[in-house]
This record gives sequence, C-alpha cells and structure tokens, in this order.
Amino acid sequence: MLKVRRVAIDTYRENVAYLHRDCSVYRTEGFRALSKIEITAGKRHILAVLNVVDDDSIVARDELGLSDPAFAHLGAKPGARVDVAHAERPASLDAVRRKVAGERLDQDAMDGIVADITANHYSKPEIAAFIVATVQNELDRDEILYLTRAMVASGERLDWPEPLVADKHCIGGIPGNRTSLLVVPIVAAHGMLIPKTSSRAITSPAGTADTMEALANVELKVADLRRIVRRHRGCIAWGGTARLAPADDVLIAVERPLGIDSHGQLIASILSKKIAAGSTHLLIDIPVGPTAKVRHMRDAQRLRKNFEYVGDRLGIHLEVIITDGRQPIGNGIGPVLEARDAMRVLQGDPTAPADLRQKALRLAGRIIEFDPDVRGGRGFTIARDILDSGRALEKMRAIMAAQGAPKHAYSPGRLWFDVRSTRTGIVSGVDNLQLARIASYAGAPAAKGAGVDLFRKLGDRVRAGDPLYRVHAEFAADFRFARALCRQSTGYAIGRAADVPPVFVEA
Amino acid sequence: MLKVRRVAIDTYRENVAYLHRDCSVYRTEGFRALSKIEITAGKRHILAVLNVVDDDSIVARDELGLSDPAFAHLGAKPGARVDVAHAERPASLDAVRRKVAGERLDQDAMDGIVADITANHYSKPEIAAFIVATVQNELDRDEILYLTRAMVASGERLDWPEPLVADKHCIGGIPGNRTSLLVVPIVAAHGMLIPKTSSRAITSPAGTADTMEALANVELKVADLRRIVRRHRGCIAWGGTARLAPADDVLIAVERPLGIDSHGQLIASILSKKIAAGSTHLLIDIPVGPTAKVRHMRDAQRLRKNFEYVGDRLGIHLEVIITDGRQPIGNGIGPVLEARDAMRVLQGDPTAPADLRQKALRLAGRIIEFDPDVRGGRGFTIARDILDSGRALEKMRAIMAAQGAPKHAYSPGRLWFDVRSTRTGIVSGVDNLQLARIASYAGAPAAKGAGVDLFRKLGDRVRAGDPLYRVHAEFAADFRFARALCRQSTGYAIGRAADVPPVFVEA
Repeated sequence: MLKVRRVAIDTYRENVAYLHRDCSVYRTEGFRALSKIEITAGKRHILAVLNVVDDDSIVARDELGLSDPAFAHLGAKPGARVDVAHAERPASLDAVRRKVAGERLDQDAMDGIVADITANHYSKPEIAAFIVATVQNELDRDEILYLTRAMVASGERLDWPEPLVADKHCIGGIPGNRTSLLVVPIVAAHGMLIPKTSSRAITSPAGTADTMEALANVELKVADLRRIVRRHRGCIAWGGTARLAPADDVLIAVERPLGIDSHGQLIASILSKKIAAGSTHLLIDIPVGPTAKVRHMRDAQRLRKNFEYVGDRLGIHLEVIITDGRQPIGNGIGPVLEARDAMRVLQGDPTAPADLRQKALRLAGRIIEFDPDVRGGRGFTIARDILDSGRALEKMRAIMAAQGAPKHAYSPGRLWFDVRSTRTGIVSGVDNLQLARIASYAGAPAAKGAGVDLFRKLGDRVRAGDPLYRVHAEFAADFRFARALCRQSTGYAIGRAADVPPVFVEA
Repeated sequence: MLKVRRVAIDTYRENVAYLHRDCSVYRTEGFRALSKIEITAGKRHILAVLNVVDDDSIVARDELGLSDPAFAHLGAKPGARVDVAHAERPASLDAVRRKVAGERLDQDAMDGIVADITANHYSKPEIAAFIVATVQNELDRDEILYLTRAMVASGERLDWPEPLVADKHCIGGIPGNRTSLLVVPIVAAHGMLIPKTSSRAITSPAGTADTMEALANVELKVADLRRIVRRHRGCIAWGGTARLAPADDVLIAVERPLGIDSHGQLIASILSKKIAAGSTHLLIDIPVGPTAKVRHMRDAQRLRKNFEYVGDRLGIHLEVIITDGRQPIGNGIGPVLEARDAMRVLQGDPTAPADLRQKALRLAGRIIEFDPDVRGGRGFTIARDILDSGRALEKMRAIMAAQGAPKHAYSPGRLWFDVRSTRTGIVSGVDNLQLARIASYAGAPAAKGAGVDLFRKLGDRVRAGDPLYRVHAEFAADFRFARALCRQSTGYAIGRAADVPPVFVEA
C-alpha cells in the first residue's frame, strides 16, 4: 500500500493521481496510458487520471499523490494508506456510445450517466464525448426531460413553505444584463418570494453572484439563506453552497471552453438548478441577436417550446420571454461596473442606463403577473411604481445588509484606457462576444473592478476620436492583455443608420 | 517575464503549464478555467492547459512550470525567460463545430484541424469532440480521403527507390495475431521489399514493435533502417523515430481510451502511416468475429469499400482480406509469448500454433502475388515453400542480427497461474477483449514476459479442471490485478459443439 499525499495542484474538477515512475508497489507502465486508476482508502474510493512523476520531491516512491480535487474527493488524511487498481470503465459510458451511435436514451441511461459524472468518474474527454453526442444526435424533448430529472436528483433540493416561489433566468451570452439585481428587490418588495441563487462566471466576465459580491456577501449557509428569505422575501446568493444539481457544474466546466452549445443541455442545466432551488414559477429570458447565443427567431421559438415542454412535465410554471440581444445591456461589463449600473437604476440616478431599467421592469412585471391577485398586463406598472417610489432600493439595501458586507470596498480598476472610434458615423454593431472577451482579458470577474464601461450603444452617433468605451483593469498584465485584444478588434462597427440590425423581438 | 522550469510530470501528450497561485507577474485567476495559455520563448511558442499550484517547491512565484511534453515542445532551456498570454482558440475548431453541426468538411478544413492537432493546440476534450463528431456525422469517403492526406502531410515521408514496396496491416482487436513476424521474412526472402514500420501498443497487450523488441532492437534511425532494408529487403522496426503521420498518434491516444471507434479515422490512421512509410502495395486484414472490432460481414464490406476508395485516390495498390476474428490467433498474448509462437512457426516446431502459421501463409501469399512475375493463385505455395525450406527463418535471423540484439534476454514472466475450466464441454467462445485485458493487467506490453498463453481454442474439448490458459506476470501487483480480473470472467465459454460461432469469412 502507498501513503497518500496532497499535491497542491488544482486540476480543476478532474481527479489526477501522481505516481512515481519507480513506485515501490506498482509499475506505472502497467496502467494504460490515459486510462484511469481506482484509489481506495478504507471505504472511500475515487477514480483518477494517472500522471507519472520523475521527481521525488513531488511524490516519493512509496507515496501516491493526489491533485487538489482528487484529494478532496477521497477525503483521506495525508499519510493514510491507499490501494490502487485499474479502474473499470464507468458502465454508463455504454449509454454515451449508444447516443453517439444515434440511439435515444431513456431515464435509466441518463440517471447512470449523471450519477457517474457527479461522482467524477468521467475524464474530460469522456464528458466532451457526451456533450458532443447530445449536440449532434440532438436530445429530443423527452431526453431533455430525463437529463433534467437526473441532474436534479444528483444533488440537494431546497424547498420553501410557500405555494409561489418565483425566479428568473437568462440563458446568457449578453454582457452586462445584470437585471437580477433589480428584479429581485422589485419582486420581493411586491411581496412575492424570490430566493435567487445563482452561479459564478465560467467563461463570461461576470455571473450574478460575482456582481452581487461587489455589494454584499454571497456565500451563505443554507440556514442563513432561509432566514434572510423568510425575513426579506428575497436574496441574491451564490448557489454553490447548496450543492444544487452538481452534475451540471461538471458538465459546463467542460462545455463552456469547448464552445459547443447544446440546446438540450442548456435547458437541462437551467431547469435542474431552478427546480433544485425550489422554484415554482420561472421566467426564462432568451436574448436574440447577431452575436447572442441564439441568433435566429426560429431557434428561439424552438428553444421556448422545449423549455415549456420540460417545465410542464416537471410541474413548474414556466414562461419564456424573447428579448433584444443585439448588444450588451447597461453600460458596465464586469462585477463592479455592473453593480454600479444596477444601483444607479435603483437610486433613480439620471445617468442610469435606460435599457437596463426598461428590461428589468419588463421582466419584473412578468414575474409580478405570476401573482394570482395581479391583473394581466398590470405587472409593468406595478414594477415601475415600486422602483420609482424607492421601495426597490430600500429592499435591496435590506437584502444587502442581511447578507453581510462585501469582503472589500470595491471600485473600478485604477488602470484604464479608452477605446476611440476611428470613423465618424452611427454605431451599427456591438459584438457581445468580443466585448465579453475584452472584459475577461481585463481581469473580470476575478478582479472585481476590471471590465468595460460602454459610452456608446447601437444607433448612437460618433465622430472619429470619440471614446467608445473605457477598459478598467487592476493588474498590469491584464491591462496589457486587454489592450492587445482591443487592438485586434474593438468589437464596434461604425456605419450608417441603415446598418443597425433591426430589433426582431416580440413587442 | 517568468523563468521556465521543467516539472517532471508526464501529462501524456497534453501540454500542461503550472503557475503559482501568487505568481509575481500574472494573476492565475485572470486565465479562464480550462482555457489554454500561450507560452512564448523567443520565437517558439506552445499552447498549454493551465494548472494552478500552491506549492513553492513545484513552481516558485517567478517561475512557469511545464510538464514533460510541454517542456519538450517548447524546447527552451531551464531558466529561460518566457512570456504568457491568453491562447487564441485554434481557428480550426470552427471546422470541428461545423462537423458537429452535420456539415461535410473539405480538404482545407481537414488540413487546418490536423495541423492544429499536430502542433498540440487541441486540448483532450477538443480532440474528443473531433473524434465523436466524425463518428456521429460519419466521415464520408471523401472526408476520409481529405483526413488521410492531411495526416500524411503532418509528418515526414520515407521513400524507397523501388517500384514495389509491400506492406500489410491488420485493423487490430485480435490478441496474438503476430503475423508480421512471419510475413516479413517470407516476403523478403521472396525478394520483395517489405520495410515494416509499426507501432507500440496503446491499449492492447502488444503491438508488432513491442513483440519484435523481445527479439531485436526496434528503435532504428532512419539511415539504419534504409541500410538494413537495402541489404535484407525487409525490417520490423518501430515507426516512432521516423515521425510518420504524427497527428495520428495524438488522435489515437485520446480515441483508444474513449473506446469510441470511428471507421473513418481508422482508415485514415492506417493509410496515412503506410503512405508516409512509402508503401506502394498494401494488404489490409479485417478480422470479423463476435468480439472483434468488426462484428458483421456487412460492416467489413463497407470498411473494405472505403479502404479501396481512399487507397485508389492516393495511388496505392491496396487489397483487403477479411479473416476469422472469432478468437486470438496463435497461443501467446504479450510480447515474449507472441515472439515465441512466431519463432516456433519459423523453426517448423511441431508445437507451433497452426492457426498462426496458416494465416501468415495466407497473408504472405497474397502479398507475393503483388509481384507481377507471380501467377495468380501461386502465392500461398511459394510462401509455404519459403517457410518450410527454412529460408524464412534464415531471413528472420539476418534481419534480427542487422537490427541488433534486444536490450535484455526476455523470458515468460516468472509469476504465473493457470485458469481452469469449471465445466466439461466444448470451448464455444473465447472473448478477444477480455483476454487482451487480462494480458494487459498482467503487465503486457511494458513487462515483456507478461501475458496469456492459451492451451485451448474454439472447438476444443475440455473437462472440468483442465487448464484453459496460463497467465504470466513479472510483478506481484500485476499478478494480483490479472488474477482478480480472471475471477471476474475467464473470457472462455464452455458449451456444446453447436454453440461455436460459425466462421463467416471468405474462402
């Protein structure tokens, strides 16, 4: 037996084991390249990918090293005795192979796949194989349903002792767009329950949790979350503590960098998190635009139908709203800048971005209409009254105070540069993807003050030399990365008024 | 800038970079999880997956650590200054995405993918995505052609100053089956050029190079290879030194453990290696059987058609032979045991396995008929005469001597156990996959003497208690792994004569 040792390398959600090439017990060559090994410590066991090491200071000959996630999963003490064996290929990979071959999967097959993914039994190439299989031989709506159910079952569930638990979710892809920081206080001020748990960014420059974290603590224990929601009717917290649909976290960690979108997985990902979080009424926002995740109205409609089908089967009241995704919403991209925008809207500041205010009111209005006592069509006005009266601001402050102060007083990054127009004309294109990338390179979301602050939006007139946006960074290396990227492409197109893409959303 | 440092971890064909969490130059959080970074040292640059490290002894704050393959690819000296940047997503991934979406790829797209794979710009999940895409939206025969061409172009090419350069290749999946060690000396003794370069096992218990290595040196410089072939008309060497179709090595390193077979990739893999090796006349062996890679005659026929189509377009004379793949060929599985079988056949030893002899003669006969001076149908007799006269043995000994002595005098593993039948009856099934796995667990091919020695084959009568096969190991841990696996399943079925699957191969 070998002694286990933590090797302080973060292999990001993949279990990696390190064995010395001249290991005293096992011949590393005996384990087939890229295959996994099974590690047993008492009653616990994990699968891990094997890396062979030639340096005694990383692992000695009588030791087995485990990377951070592997060490955490095994849960053994340093020096504990461990056994190593060839890992059996996870049985559910047969179902993945069947899906690759074009078969439909049933609930049992999906349960098996999700259970193995949750237990970290899949390598990254295996997860990638599953993702690609679900894109190519598209998941039909029943398969999406099975996958959603399996993902809900993979983790914990919150439940709330009320008949109406509201939530909203945007399918993503639009920088800025931090409507949750407005919708939650408006809806909660109306008296409806809206316990919002959200994620951190994986590849985008900010998730709702990242942005809220610039204003308040978001890492709440489930008990604290319940207490705050009972008292204030809402919260904006990070969902990670509650272990909701953990299989989803593993899947998207591989899916996002691959850049291969699976509609079926998108639906399962969103609905499993929301159902696990105890939502009963859910508003889904699908932005459509030339650089949005969904680029054509027909795709948005198909996505809507599948959301509705799965939502109905899972007993959730679900509505889909299709919105303008032609450009970022609000001015700021990045946690601090987005939080600033949201607070300006709540405060009725005249410099607050009108598009963010308008979109938040529209979403909040639709959620308020989930309330059986609200007459259809009245939601928007109620939401606006709550916002304009200052009650939403008051509610937001109460929620922030209840969640606790942020770790630091954050401000926009001290290093900055402006990107200017080289032409005179009308802003006829703002590339969501490029602006998100610029904000990411500038350091968002890890550097909270990093990001992009937009000065011009679609349809605005600019002259050559006018600043289009400002990029903020906190660190010199990030500053250089972002500046180099802006030089490749600013993400802005300057043309004529006729070049502005039409809004092709619903009224 | 950071100082580069080799971190002695073998990340097996994937470039991994290690940065300290508190790196003095870059914020590790600024690089997005699972995304790659670009590392530049002077004019050389590589892409690598980033792992964050919390241990100064692995990498210091002013260092960038590189895993073995990454360090080798960058080719910088330890302590050299390196720059780090966000890696651009390889442009060819767009083509992978298009393939996932169901499009056909053209030559340019395949060239781009193969060039990026060869340059190690793809992560393992990205390679897996490409592999799955080519299985699901099957590669059509022109796509296979484009992929083959691109893979040939990815590396070096050997050329031989002769009009007829013969070779053979089995698509794999049948343990034992070491016909090359017989075909090469027979064909070379006939006077035809047969410069065989072959691979080492990835997941199987032995490749031809592994087995030949038990008899002779196989790691030959290209100049030595040429000299030996000029003198002896043949060789059996490892192809790795020649850098033939290196993209293929990267692909199969991910494909094999995934266990997802792509017929298109199989064809491109084999033909690219053979064309790069300079073959003009090629015999492809497709074994068919219930536990072979190809399980149905119709699949074998389809595969044959595609081999023929691509071979014709690439100007190679190609013939396909479909053979009996119901069970292992020969008795030994594993380098030493397979080498022993081949030498026994060459020596005319009465204990030599008849099936190996027969199959080798059949293949050699077909290759000899590539000779324009040989009358159709005469090849088998010529091959048999060469073998029975001892000329093949003489040729093999000359080739072995020219390649040089093996590193050690190998013998079957000293640790062994017999697996016995629990029933009386007829051997009605021998599972290729399970026997390959047992031999692998026993330590083959890295432990040359490890493997399985079969005492009974299909149709043989056994009594309860009779030994079915012997498992050899060289190391105690391997011995235990193999024994545990045999207890799960011996891989043998004992039934009635009527249960033996029919031979469904051509005459």
